[in-house]
Amino acid sequence: MSGTLHGVGLGPGDPELLTVKAVRTLEATGIVAYFAKAGRCGYARNIASRWLRPDCTEVPLHYPVTTEIRFDHPAYAEQLAAFYEASTERLAGYLEAGQDVALICEGDPLFYGSFMHLYLRLKPRFPCRIVPGVTGMSGCWTAAGVPMTWGDDTLAVLPGTLPANQLREKLASADAIVVMKLGQNLPKVRAALDALGLTARALYIERGTMEAEVVMPLAAKTDDEAPYFSVILVPGEGRRP
Amino acid sequence: MSGTLHGVGLGPGDPELLTVKAVRTLEATGIVAYFAKAGRCGYARNIASRWLRPDCTEVPLHYPVTTEIRFDHPAYAEQLAAFYEASTERLAGYLEAGQDVALICEGDPLFYGSFMHLYLRLKPRFPCRIVPGVTGMSGCWTAAGVPMTWGDDTLAVLPGTLPANQLREKLASADAIVVMKLGQNLPKVRAALDALGLTARALYIERGTMEAEVVMPLAAKTDDEAPYFSVILVPGEGRRP
Ligand SMILES: C[S@@+](CC[C@H](N)C(=O)[O-])C[C@H]1O[C@@H](n2cnc3c(N)ncnc32)[C@H](O)[C@@H]1O
Ligand SMILES: C[S@@+](CC[C@H](N)C(=O)[O-])C[C@H]1O[C@@H](n2cnc3c(N)ncnc32)[C@H](O)[C@@H]1O
Repeated sequence: MSGTLHGVGLGPGDPELLTVKAVRTLEATGIVAYFAKAGRCGYARNIASRWLRPDCTEVPLHYPVTTEIRFDHPAYAEQLAAFYEASTERLAGYLEAGQDVALICEGDPLFYGSFMHLYLRLKPRFPCRIVPGVTGMSGCWTAAGVPMTWGDDTLAVLPGTLPANQLREKLASADAIVVMKLGQNLPKVRAALDALGLTARALYIERGTMEAEVVMPLAAKTDDEAPYFSVILVPGEGRRP
Repeated sequence: MSGTLHGVGLGPGDPELLTVKAVRTLEATGIVAYFAKAGRCGYARNIASRWLRPDCTEVPLHYPVTTEIRFDHPAYAEQLAAFYEASTERLAGYLEAGQDVALICEGDPLFYGSFMHLYLRLKPRFPCRIVPGVTGMSGCWTAAGVPMTWGDDTLAVLPGTLPANQLREKLASADAIVVMKLGQNLPKVRAALDALGLTARALYIERGTMEAEVVMPLAAKTDDEAPYFSVILVPGEGRRP
């Protein structure tokens, strides 16, 4: 009998925002895997910290590349693919031996999550089960205390990595907007929002629900530094009786 | 000292998908309010059932109208506004008396939630705190077991209540799509997806993570019946090393 792969969403950062199902899954699983930058502990590992079994086996999966190579360079995709293959085999080893594995992920596993790359590879071979999580964006609009979508509002979730012209086009046609993956893309995203007159409505949130949380109007942000965990929100303004 | 209003997200339906923070808030709060259709128990109340204190005071807020009047009729907005005002005063009574109130909501409170209508009215008068929840859409893509957004994918969340031409336009420009609020709008949404050749990629999910959950390809759905809790998902097909 092979083990089961559990993709466990941990929510946006506050350890109390794990679901009861996520906590119970961690209590029942002896092998806990997570992605992390080389030399780092990993965001997911930090969030899960208080919920891990003291006797669990930790399996850190260290990314070979992060920002050293541009994401559109062929070498980036090649290195990542090899890394995902190797990680798949590492987890397959435990699963074949009949051990359950929890692959823990920040936010929701199926929403822009690295989990998905291993899930697609392991799903044909092993039973898989997924525990959804509170997304980072929900954590961010909660941190800001703003209702995000009303009535007929449409919401666009856009990665800041999009080319400027595509960003502008998609920003223009939505009622409410979330821009994820800011980092080095902040100046480009800001310019697109400025061009559309959206900056006055925009909020900048860093590390929503985490300890070093920052919430401010985008207009008040004077520098161009954005950490990995940051988003821009433009709340909707739809029907409100 | 006035009480605090807690907006508590309950997640998509499975009672184990409440967060630890939501459970602790319910354990600590003696007054639990929720919206419900007249004569019904209410979805939120059902989801929270096992987590409520046996001694809690329940405050059901019964909608005066639901589908009897069209949502774009002026009388609909008027009746709803009066209902939200009256509900605000009901909760304000407890809060003024120094009692905390948990207003429980399906999914995430700030994402198309009725909670927001009372929150905007009570926020200027009382301390408020929000507990984010797993959204219904996360519950639905988890139920379907499909990765929703990859790499540079954009996600559009669209209410099925939009006019057909707007639906078509917005469906055409997104990589991944969630259509919420189906109900009577299903034929219109289906026609828009058909016109764009998206039906083959679309999934229909009813009551994601709830007991009577249904997951099927939209193409396999032969009737036009969709309950309140139903969505259509078009998963993204972006970059996957
Ligand atoms: C690779 S995506 C992973 C998303 C995650 N699976 C989720 O459900 O939110 C990472 C991006 O999510 C956003 N993000 C996630 N959690 C966040 C938080 N707590 N605060 C701010 N941004 C966050 C940031 O934009 C970040 O670049
Ligand atoms: C008024 S909105 C409330 C959304 C909620 N606050 C959330 O965060 O998901 C109600 C719509 O959400 C969608 N929905 C919410 N939960 C769902 C579930 N468990 N299964 C299917 N659809 C759901 C349906 O499209 C429904 O019409």
